[in-house]
Amino acid sequence: MNAKRNSTGFLVKQRLFLKAYLITFIEKGRPYGTQMLEELKEQFKPFGFSPNHAEVYRALHELMKEGVIRPDKRKLREDSFQEVTIYFLRDSEKAQTIKQQAIDEFVRSHALLEQAIEDLTDK
Amino acid sequence: MNAKRNSTGFLVKQRLFLKAYLITFIEKGRPYGTQMLEELKEQFKPFGFSPNHAEVYRALHELMKEGVIRPDKRKLREDSFQEVTIYFLRDSEKAQTIKQQAIDEFVRSHALLEQAIEDLTDK
Repeated sequence: MNAKRNSTGFLVKQRLFLKAYLITFIEKGRPYGTQMLEELKEQFKPFGFSPNHAEVYRALHELMKEGVIRPDKRKLREDSFQEVTIYFLRDSEKAQTIKQQAIDEFVRSHALLEQAIEDLTDK
Repeated sequence: MNAKRNSTGFLVKQRLFLKAYLITFIEKGRPYGTQMLEELKEQFKPFGFSPNHAEVYRALHELMKEGVIRPDKRKLREDSFQEVTIYFLRDSEKAQTIKQQAIDEFVRSHALLEQAIEDLTDK
């Protein structure tokens, strides 16, 4: 049912949205998975959107599988045994392609919604 | 997985989008199910969105179950045995509530995408 629904091409998919943001975080030198999730939650709170852990990790996983990013381990502190996972870009070209796809989808979805707002409020 | 994904509150759901348009078609005296599907397809073609038969009929069915609209049969022509289903509003107040919910969701989603376009193009 989900596949069928997606096939109508309604609005940009959450997965692509998250992938584009994750790439951008990594580009900006904010490579911690948990930090990314918190930043997304914080930023989209005013819009009623709260991405969850599962969705963000699925997006990270997909980017790894596609060879776009790679994970690495880093000690939490110099004297600590605790490690956290950080992410690096592995293929900048692929990363740019995904970001551009996402932006195109944002623009398309934005225009579609603008049409809908006009249609349904201005009758 | 779909339920989980919806719970993050990402963008307006296609079901609500369609319900709001179907109500509007009925209000405007265009009560034929097939005609509604064709109009939607035609109107959203430039936006890459092509609602399918199953999605439109699920939305109509949900509106009937909620008591918002009711179906009726009409002969295709005066001298014909062939019948088509047309739809009427049954509860205008409920219909307005759904339309308003949809508009609120369009506006929220539109703002979210605007933010995303700004974030990802202007770095």
